[in-house]
Amino acid sequence: MHLASSAESQRVAELLTNDARFSARIEAANETVLARLQSADPVLKRVLPASDVVPGMSRETVLHSGPPIAWEDMCDLLRASLKAAVVFEGICPTLEEAERQLAQGQISLRSCHEVGGVAPLAGVVTASMPVFLVEDVNLGTQAFCPINEGLGKVLRYGAYGPEVFNRLRWMGEVLGPVLDKVLRKTGGIPVFGIMSHALHMGDECHNRHKAGTTLFLKALIPALLGEAGPEVEQAVAFISKTDVFFLNIAMPGVKCSTMAVEHVADSSIVTVLSQNGTRFGIRTAGTGKTWFEADAPFIKGKFFSGFDQSHANPGIGDSLITETMGFGGLAMAAAPALVRYIGGDPAEAKRLNELMYGIVAAEHPKHTIPSLNFRGTPFGIDVRKVVSCGVTPVANAGIAHRVPGEGQVGAGYIHTPMRCFEKALAALHKTLTEDPATQSS
Amino acid sequence: MHLASSAESQRVAELLTNDARFSARIEAANETVLARLQSADPVLKRVLPASDVVPGMSRETVLHSGPPIAWEDMCDLLRASLKAAVVFEGICPTLEEAERQLAQGQISLRSCHEVGGVAPLAGVVTASMPVFLVEDVNLGTQAFCPINEGLGKVLRYGAYGPEVFNRLRWMGEVLGPVLDKVLRKTGGIPVFGIMSHALHMGDECHNRHKAGTTLFLKALIPALLGEAGPEVEQAVAFISKTDVFFLNIAMPGVKCSTMAVEHVADSSIVTVLSQNGTRFGIRTAGTGKTWFEADAPFIKGKFFSGFDQSHANPGIGDSLITETMGFGGLAMAAAPALVRYIGGDPAEAKRLNELMYGIVAAEHPKHTIPSLNFRGTPFGIDVRKVVSCGVTPVANAGIAHRVPGEGQVGAGYIHTPMRCFEKALAALHKTLTEDPATQSS
Repeated sequence: MHLASSAESQRVAELLTNDARFSARIEAANETVLARLQSADPVLKRVLPASDVVPGMSRETVLHSGPPIAWEDMCDLLRASLKAAVVFEGICPTLEEAERQLAQGQISLRSCHEVGGVAPLAGVVTASMPVFLVEDVNLGTQAFCPINEGLGKVLRYGAYGPEVFNRLRWMGEVLGPVLDKVLRKTGGIPVFGIMSHALHMGDECHNRHKAGTTLFLKALIPALLGEAGPEVEQAVAFISKTDVFFLNIAMPGVKCSTMAVEHVADSSIVTVLSQNGTRFGIRTAGTGKTWFEADAPFIKGKFFSGFDQSHANPGIGDSLITETMGFGGLAMAAAPALVRYIGGDPAEAKRLNELMYGIVAAEHPKHTIPSLNFRGTPFGIDVRKVVSCGVTPVANAGIAHRVPGEGQVGAGYIHTPMRCFEKALAALHKTLTEDPATQSS
Repeated sequence: MHLASSAESQRVAELLTNDARFSARIEAANETVLARLQSADPVLKRVLPASDVVPGMSRETVLHSGPPIAWEDMCDLLRASLKAAVVFEGICPTLEEAERQLAQGQISLRSCHEVGGVAPLAGVVTASMPVFLVEDVNLGTQAFCPINEGLGKVLRYGAYGPEVFNRLRWMGEVLGPVLDKVLRKTGGIPVFGIMSHALHMGDECHNRHKAGTTLFLKALIPALLGEAGPEVEQAVAFISKTDVFFLNIAMPGVKCSTMAVEHVADSSIVTVLSQNGTRFGIRTAGTGKTWFEADAPFIKGKFFSGFDQSHANPGIGDSLITETMGFGGLAMAAAPALVRYIGGDPAEAKRLNELMYGIVAAEHPKHTIPSLNFRGTPFGIDVRKVVSCGVTPVANAGIAHRVPGEGQVGAGYIHTPMRCFEKALAALHKTLTEDPATQSS
C-alpha cells in the first residue's frame, strides 16, 4: 500500500502527468478506457466445459491462475493443483507421471489471463471442467472462470484425493449442466446488477459474496420453478451453503469488461492484477498484454486459530481482478462485516478505502458505497498516480497454506508491489517517447 | 429522542433505579425478561386466513394497527382503511354503509395487539385475509401479521378501488395458499436467523428488508423446487419485487417473542411501541396489557419530491414493534444505505444508534452490528433509563399521506413521545408501592 517509489519513477510519473506532450494523449486514452468500463454490462450466459469455451484447448492443455510461469519456478501449491488436475482429467494415471510430464513440458501450461479467463487461488482448469461464461453485452467481450468448489478439501488449495475428485466429477456431471440449463432459461444474469446491489448489502465483492450469492440465487428462482429432482436439489444446496460462490461469477464479469480496454494505446489504466504464488503481475491498457512483475507478496491479515505467517504461501490467484474495477480492497468501506474476518477495524477499513481514491482516474457512477455517503467506488487504477502517491492498490485475499491440500489459513490485505507499477509506467513512457507523434510535438 | 422528562418523573426513575426496595425487584424481573427475549426463536410456520388464527374472530370483526381507539377519534387514514376493508370483506356493499355501521359500533373493531397480532401503517385485517403465523418454538407464543401488499395503491395507505381489491383477492386466493404450501414443506423458517444475517447485510430490519426478503426467498428455494405453474410464478415475482416483504414476517417474529414477557411483574422493559395515527402507545412487561399513551408524533425525515410536512399523517402502524427487540432505529448503524432514504448521513445514524445503548438493559448476544465493531444491538428498552436519560427510543418509519389512498410521501425517524414512558414509569412505581412486599421491607 504505502510503498515508496524510486526517484526516477517519480520523475517519470511527473512527466507523464504534467507534460502536455504525454498527458494529453494519456488523458484522451484514459477517457476512452473509463467510458468503456462504465458502460460495461457483463452477463452470465452459460456454464460449459472449458474445451467448448477456450479456443484450441486440447485435452493436454491445463490452465492456471496468475501470470505465465515456468514449471520450475512454480510454488508447491500451484504444482500440486496442476498435478492433481492432470490426474483428474485422465491425462496421466499418477501424480508422479503427471509431475514428470509437466516438468518435461509434455503438457501445455497456459495462464488463464492469456486465453481470456481467470481462476481464484491455485485454480487450474482442464478441458472437461465446467466454466462460467460471461459475455459483456455492450462491449462484446467474453471471459470465463471455473465454478467455485466450495468448502473442504479443494483443488484450488492444492488438495488431492477422492473428496476432491468426487466433487469435481459431480460439478462436471451435475452442477455445470444444471446451472447451464437454468441459466439458459433466464436468458442470462447481469453480473454488475447484482454487484452494485451487493455493495449496499455488506459485500465488497471480492472476499465477501454473501449478498451476491443470495441475489444470484434469487435471480435463478423463476427458472428453477418447474425443475425438480435430486440433481437440481443438490445444485441449489451446494450454492446455498457456499457464501463465496458468486466470486467465480464476479471475476469473469470484471475480466470481460477489462478485456475491452486491453489494447487502448497510451492509457495508464491497470487492466489486470494477478499472482501465481511466485510472482505478482500487472498489465495496463496502454501496454496491452505485457506483464510487469515482482515477487508475489505475503498477505497481511488474520490467521485462523493454530496458524501463523510461517504457514502462509505468498499471494496466489486471479481474484484481485475485482480490484481493477473498484471492488474488493477498493470498496472495503462497503463491507464492515468482513473487517473482523481479515483482522482490522471498520475505521481502518474506511481510511484505506478513502486512500484508494488518490490512485484512480474516476468514481463509478453506478457502483456506490453507502457508508461513504454513496460515493462512487474508486476505479480505473492509474499507474502514474500509484507511483506519484507512493500508494499501491490494496486487494483482499484469502491466505493459502503453503503445503498443498491444507487449505485456507487466514485472510487479509495484499499490499500490491510498487515495482510492478514502476515497470509499467516506464514501459508506457517508452511507448510514448518512441511514438513519432510525441517526438514531433 | 432528546425530550425532557419532568422533575417528578426523574425523581421516580431515580427511586426505582437506586432504592433497593424497588431496584432489586425490578432487576430480578428484568433478568427474567432479558433471558426470555434472548432465547426467543420465532419461526414462520403458516399462512392462514385471519379467522383461522385469531380466536373468536367473526366475519364482522375488523382488526387495526395501533393502540385501541374509538371510531370518532381515528384519523381519516385509518377510517378509510377500515371502510375499504369492510367493503372488501363483503360486510357492507358500499363505503357509505360501511362508515355508518362502523360509526354506530355494529362492526367489532379491535387493536391487533389486543389479539396477538401486528399490522404496519393503517393496516387492517378482516376474517378472510391471509396472515403470517409465527410461533416462538422456545417460548411457546404465537403472533400474526397480514402479508405485505407491495407497491402501488394499497389498503395500508387507505386506498380503495379495483387495483387494491384485486390484489387483496389475489393475495387471499393465490399468494397465501402458495406460501402456506411452500412453508409447510420447509417445516418453518426461523425469523431471527434471517434477521441476524440481514443486520450484516445492510438491513436495520424495520425500514430496510432488502437482505431479509432475499434471504427469505433463498430459504424457500428447496421447497419451491418441484412447484410449477402461473400461481407460484406470480407469488415469487411478487415477493421478488417487494423489497420490504419481509417486514411483515419480522414484525410478528418480534411480537411473539415479546408476548412471552407481557406479564412479568415488576419489569421496567418495554414490550410494545405502537401508534394509530392519533395516539402513540407503549406497554411494559411489568404493567401487562395497560397502554400508556400520548399524541402520535409526526415523523421527522425526508419527503419524496413534491411533498412536505403539510401532507404528512402523524405516525401510524405497529411496525415499530421491531424496535422493542433492538432492530430499526436501535440498529441504524447496520444500514448505511437506508440513511439517504430517510434524510440523514451515516455519521449521524451511528451517533443516534450509540445513544440508544443508554436506554436499554442489554446488548443482544447474537444480533450484532458490524460497523460498531460487532457490538450487540441495544435491546430491552428500560422506561427508567428513558426517563432518567431524557432520551426516548428512535424508531424508523414511512411517512403516510394524510389523505387516504395517496400513499407514502417520505420516510424518517419517529422520536417516540416521552410522556408515554413517564406514565408507564409512574404506573410501575404505583404497582410496586401498592404491593405489600415493598411496603413491609
